[in-house]
Amino acid sequence: MGDQQEHFHIIKNGNIATAKGFQAGGLHCGLRKKKIDLGWVYSEVPAQAAGVYTTNSFQAAPLKVTQESIAKENQLQAVIVNSAIANACTGEQGLQDAYDMRKLFAETMGVEEHLAAVASTGLIGELLPMEKLQKGISQVNDQEHLGAEKFETAILTTDTKEKGIAIELEIDGETVTIGGAAKGSGMIHPNMATMLGFVTTDANISSNHLTDTLKAITNKSFNMITVDGDTSTNDMVLVLANGQAENKELTPDHKDWETFYEGLKFVCEYLAKEIARDGEGATRLVEVNVEGAFTDESATGIAKSIISSNLVKTAIHGADANWGRIITAIGYSGESLDPDKVSIYLGDILVVENGVPHPFDEEAAKEHLLEDEVKILAKLGDANGRATAWGCDLSYEYVRINASYRT
Amino acid sequence: MGDQQEHFHIIKNGNIATAKGFQAGGLHCGLRKKKIDLGWVYSEVPAQAAGVYTTNSFQAAPLKVTQESIAKENQLQAVIVNSAIANACTGEQGLQDAYDMRKLFAETMGVEEHLAAVASTGLIGELLPMEKLQKGISQVNDQEHLGAEKFETAILTTDTKEKGIAIELEIDGETVTIGGAAKGSGMIHPNMATMLGFVTTDANISSNHLTDTLKAITNKSFNMITVDGDTSTNDMVLVLANGQAENKELTPDHKDWETFYEGLKFVCEYLAKEIARDGEGATRLVEVNVEGAFTDESATGIAKSIISSNLVKTAIHGADANWGRIITAIGYSGESLDPDKVSIYLGDILVVENGVPHPFDEEAAKEHLLEDEVKILAKLGDANGRATAWGCDLSYEYVRINASYRT
Repeated sequence: MGDQQEHFHIIKNGNIATAKGFQAGGLHCGLRKKKIDLGWVYSEVPAQAAGVYTTNSFQAAPLKVTQESIAKENQLQAVIVNSAIANACTGEQGLQDAYDMRKLFAETMGVEEHLAAVASTGLIGELLPMEKLQKGISQVNDQEHLGAEKFETAILTTDTKEKGIAIELEIDGETVTIGGAAKGSGMIHPNMATMLGFVTTDANISSNHLTDTLKAITNKSFNMITVDGDTSTNDMVLVLANGQAENKELTPDHKDWETFYEGLKFVCEYLAKEIARDGEGATRLVEVNVEGAFTDESATGIAKSIISSNLVKTAIHGADANWGRIITAIGYSGESLDPDKVSIYLGDILVVENGVPHPFDEEAAKEHLLEDEVKILAKLGDANGRATAWGCDLSYEYVRINASYRT
Repeated sequence: MGDQQEHFHIIKNGNIATAKGFQAGGLHCGLRKKKIDLGWVYSEVPAQAAGVYTTNSFQAAPLKVTQESIAKENQLQAVIVNSAIANACTGEQGLQDAYDMRKLFAETMGVEEHLAAVASTGLIGELLPMEKLQKGISQVNDQEHLGAEKFETAILTTDTKEKGIAIELEIDGETVTIGGAAKGSGMIHPNMATMLGFVTTDANISSNHLTDTLKAITNKSFNMITVDGDTSTNDMVLVLANGQAENKELTPDHKDWETFYEGLKFVCEYLAKEIARDGEGATRLVEVNVEGAFTDESATGIAKSIISSNLVKTAIHGADANWGRIITAIGYSGESLDPDKVSIYLGDILVVENGVPHPFDEEAAKEHLLEDEVKILAKLGDANGRATAWGCDLSYEYVRINASYRT
């Protein structure tokens, strides 16, 4: 058992296959030289399913196919994911390949096609080598490839580490588990980034409530992170709820609804923060809190403006308490605010009060900016709107990675 | 005489003091260790004046004072500019300092206060050392400090070079000159960046037409450049037209209106491009052209989205023909478009045709991406909207400069 949270426990070594009736695995099918590059998640029974997808106009082929699958009955039983190639901007051939990938996988797993989802991440504009994929898919039932940690590895691109979690909570006296895995790294920005998130739970919940909840939570978690302001063609978050915990069906009227909601939010927020922390070239996680805005929406716009600023991000990389750049980012957010009421904190240190500098200990500020988690708080003093966003610093390493990713 | 343009000549070594009746100068007053840090422009007679200002909510004190000056009679006769300290987020004391700076300068130049404008650029949140400024201002009439090149130097911050130009055109048979100077470097983004632009002309034109024209041209020049997406608190562009060329007053009905408009646009565009080319850490100028969008506004949004993408900018820095990042930036622009009609060129090289990859010579593309001016063209095929934006690559040097600017 991990940390005690209010209504749930983090399960030590918990992952996407911890909830009852779920399995996951990964193998190397040859899209990458050595690294595992094909992963899958499977539920023993069809699960209620919900998805959120990139807002990019160039939505990749696998997203179209997955949306079709879910549209049929709002259920999924199996998800397959490849890294290395995004199958985006690949025209009709790419769409056909995504259908074929789904078909092959569904047949191998023995599920109906519309119960299978596909996801891809990696280079844009290249066709999937279908022979390699086919060979890989034919092996997904081999015992040796099972293991959630293999799934976590298979979906990574330039990520430096696996991202997984599971928590346990009690609903109707039954133990319910929520687990998840994600990948991120570059092209990470609000409204779905180059990120994939997969969440599994054995909770019993209807798909329409699952869909509404996922959307609301995504807006406060995955959509509140940024690495570089680029929103990719391939992002999606899927949740599968297979009901194996046998709780009474969850609806907003259920007495334990809040517990479930907070638990799901915790898992999504955890994965989102792990993505931000592991942003390309990142050396620290940055959390921006905005309070006292006219509305929550306005606070969201301001938080995103700060977390997206290259100048704020390089200042943090240099551990320079350059609050002028934070003020500037607030000012160009396009949100309405009273400049003379704005106060800014770096960690606990007040650096701007009511729009003008407040004397502060530079050394103490520098120390905070060198911590693994840097916190910026902007108090606007206008009303009660609030929001939180996460991101990372901008380093030489980011430039190195991205000046040479493809070649 | 420089290059032959359609209706005007670039004047060799022309600058902000080339138009009849203008002078400029610069000196060291001690805001910076050694570099010249105080500059001014003066017209022998009051000039019609127009300004555009940052859209940042935290508008710096000098912008408020300058807007007050112009509001009085739409005229200016003298402009003073300091670098090193932005006089932004400095509260009431900062506003008083900006008024005092204007007053001291106006008295020294022998002009009425409302005919003087003030501008500042540099660190946010520090008060101007008024004694040093006062001493500097007292010397602005000394012959030794005259010279447009001194003005060009005085207004720079992290810029690596001076930015000036003048052109000559003919209106009513009279020779009219338009000159300008600018500074940029960091915090450069559409809607006025950390940039200052000053344009002088001896044309005879009414201030209301000058204002309308400046706004229209700024939207196609200074507001179409980006270095890092950050819009500063201090940006402004001022135009002074003193009428010394003695042409018949210019209005849109004047037979030579187009000539004047194109000339002013050329000067603003030239200065804007010079700012982009000299962006912090930049090694090349990037020009993005978007054609065939549903509207010009939509083309503008797409061009800005491409030019602002860190991933596009790092790919160009690495001379990597990674068009997937360009497609991605088009896709998340939020503008409506048909993804299946989009074609992309790097220089003359077609790399994407109707939404799917077009085979191309990687070496030739790399060669183009290594040129001093990189061109990206997106043809959308939807209608006739078009726009051009300018920016630069994103280098290690950008991170170095900005991780240590303040300390």
